[in-house]
Amino acid sequence: MTDLDAVVHGASELVVGPDGSGRALETVEDGAVAVVDGTVAAVGPTEDVTREYPPGNARRAVDAGGRAVLPGFVDPHTHGLFAGDRSDEFAAKLRGKSYQDILAEGGGILRTVRAVRDADDETLLSNLLGHLDTMLAHGTTTVEVKSGYGLDTETELQMLRVIDRADDRHPVDVVPTFMGAHAVPEGRDADDYTDEVVEEQIPAVESQGVADFCDVFCEEGVFSVAQSRRVLEAGAEAGLTPKVHAEELAHIGGTQLAAEMGATSADHLLYATEEDIDALVEASVTPVLLPGTAFGLGADYADAGAFLESGAPVAVATDFNPNCHSHSMGFAMALSCVEMRMTPAEALVAGTRNAALALDREDGSGTLREGAPADLLVLDAPTHVHVPYQYGTNVVDTVLADGAVVCEDGRTTYE
Amino acid sequence: MTDLDAVVHGASELVVGPDGSGRALETVEDGAVAVVDGTVAAVGPTEDVTREYPPGNARRAVDAGGRAVLPGFVDPHTHGLFAGDRSDEFAAKLRGKSYQDILAEGGGILRTVRAVRDADDETLLSNLLGHLDTMLAHGTTTVEVKSGYGLDTETELQMLRVIDRADDRHPVDVVPTFMGAHAVPEGRDADDYTDEVVEEQIPAVESQGVADFCDVFCEEGVFSVAQSRRVLEAGAEAGLTPKVHAEELAHIGGTQLAAEMGATSADHLLYATEEDIDALVEASVTPVLLPGTAFGLGADYADAGAFLESGAPVAVATDFNPNCHSHSMGFAMALSCVEMRMTPAEALVAGTRNAALALDREDGSGTLREGAPADLLVLDAPTHVHVPYQYGTNVVDTVLADGAVVCEDGRTTYE
Repeated sequence: MTDLDAVVHGASELVVGPDGSGRALETVEDGAVAVVDGTVAAVGPTEDVTREYPPGNARRAVDAGGRAVLPGFVDPHTHGLFAGDRSDEFAAKLRGKSYQDILAEGGGILRTVRAVRDADDETLLSNLLGHLDTMLAHGTTTVEVKSGYGLDTETELQMLRVIDRADDRHPVDVVPTFMGAHAVPEGRDADDYTDEVVEEQIPAVESQGVADFCDVFCEEGVFSVAQSRRVLEAGAEAGLTPKVHAEELAHIGGTQLAAEMGATSADHLLYATEEDIDALVEASVTPVLLPGTAFGLGADYADAGAFLESGAPVAVATDFNPNCHSHSMGFAMALSCVEMRMTPAEALVAGTRNAALALDREDGSGTLREGAPADLLVLDAPTHVHVPYQYGTNVVDTVLADGAVVCEDGRTTYE
Repeated sequence: MTDLDAVVHGASELVVGPDGSGRALETVEDGAVAVVDGTVAAVGPTEDVTREYPPGNARRAVDAGGRAVLPGFVDPHTHGLFAGDRSDEFAAKLRGKSYQDILAEGGGILRTVRAVRDADDETLLSNLLGHLDTMLAHGTTTVEVKSGYGLDTETELQMLRVIDRADDRHPVDVVPTFMGAHAVPEGRDADDYTDEVVEEQIPAVESQGVADFCDVFCEEGVFSVAQSRRVLEAGAEAGLTPKVHAEELAHIGGTQLAAEMGATSADHLLYATEEDIDALVEASVTPVLLPGTAFGLGADYADAGAFLESGAPVAVATDFNPNCHSHSMGFAMALSCVEMRMTPAEALVAGTRNAALALDREDGSGTLREGAPADLLVLDAPTHVHVPYQYGTNVVDTVLADGAVVCEDGRTTYE
């Protein structure tokens, strides 16, 4: 039995995953999970699981008595690798300063671009590892991290290399996305820069082999639908699956582009129409909603109800970045409930199974079904409802990644 | 120098307290604090403070290099002692179920009353100590806790005894408030129950000597202004300083009552008028705003700007209770910025110095001025702005209470 990594038993509520409706949960009362070779070998009532997999035979037994056990959170949209400090802009924006004014004063995204270009590999890596530790302590076991603060070939490649090193070093599973088309660099024309992304950056990313996805900020005043299409097509040819930042500040057609391109996800979607939603469902594009961004700006939220009613597998993410400095998927779920009127079950599915879909993970990620990666959480609370109910605090106590305990009592413990 | 408890030095930003305007901060760059006999003996530039108080001579030296040092947070309004689990009501309310419906089904506050009446002293004490640990880890060093889930003499006294024991045991300074007039018990008439509070409960609380304040829920359908006045007058005669839950759900005159009674604070205040605000300022009543409650209900927020413009010393609190299960003053400050458009400095003053005023603390509490209790925080961030900027996570790293380190790396370390 030396291959029995862990048995977690006695959970007051064990969340296996979404039920058939996709909007409610399949749960087990007094549940247990057994982990063999980093994957879920058995899940069910404690009595049944522990008969086959006695906790005493496991490298690690966790008594979850009275506490809930959930799949690890999956955060499918972050810009988590950056340098510098833009906390001053938070206050300025809430006092009514527009993003345009901030940009004009040298702030905003291009300020982060300057800071990242000035940073060395070790600083960038250390920043990212620190953020991954905080995310892990808040229950995130898989996170997507985008490049896009380099905006030149060299720095974009550097960011992707750092993301890759962080993935090697850290128990959080880090999914790399190339996003050279995150903004138009200072003094450049959007068409001209699109040429660079398509002709220079994407071939370089392909030859370095360090990204799974290609994302683009398809938005009024940033990249048009035509420019975005060029980027995503070039990315797809280079083996990078499309993702789209769509209809965040205005409606320009990014959602339809995502559907047309068969993107894995379309993200933000504040101004998506009914037709857009139908197109996403038709093309099996996962909508990713980012309520933390709206919160930090005091702005409006996406219409989660419309997406849920359409049958779309709504995902939520933190959008963690200098403009939305929130590491916590639990808080994103709380906002999903409070501000987007999702149920706690819908929010949890959005932050686990559907978030995994938004990263093309078809291996059971975001669930605790047999064969899934054994990424799981023990809460300091009896049910999943406490994740949004205890808003503003972290109810995650213990985290297992691939069946190994990597965080206990809110503190990382991995080697 | 054996009386030198601690020296905290090298703070990137040391927040001493509000400046003369009351809306901005007095700060020291590369600042330090020396603590003698549990109080602040010196505060200023590290070079000056450490010349007089060498860190090597202190029982505990804390190098805050690159990190901000703030006064401990003061939470001036909680119902932090309770039993039972009402997380199910959170979801129901967000789906449109009214508080009246929840009450009719046996839920709401009276459900907590039943759970508290059924709980023994040890359960209640253990619950409260657990919440105090979480609050401490989030930077709260002083917290007010109300009774009011007993609604009979015996259980109200029991709650106050448990609050007193928690204060003895725990490094967080716990301020006890009697609130027998929190709700009208099932099957009772409000006038008749007011008689009981005035004639039986308050005399019993006085003879037990275990409360500083007397609070009342002055609200449409709960206690009228006349009933509230009777409670507060009887409390004042028994040595309990008045506080008022005022204008939370409707405007009925609780704020004017608070002014008339010279209350220490008037709390909630969503429906306060300009005249009400003027009356509070005239009578030196501290307004306490509770944005976490509005957040959890998806409801409106108090008009913080109107209070600030009037010159009132606006305080914020968590309102931690089963209907607002949020321990974090940092999150209350984030909501103050995002939803009530306060500046980070105004929010911090509201959660420290002004919150101490709302508890009649005139000893420098909520500041790090010479002679103040040495309750202070080292953040895992360079400035106070990061408290609201990093919304949904906890940026407090180290907590000192009365000059002793009681929490490190987010985990309590007191004996």
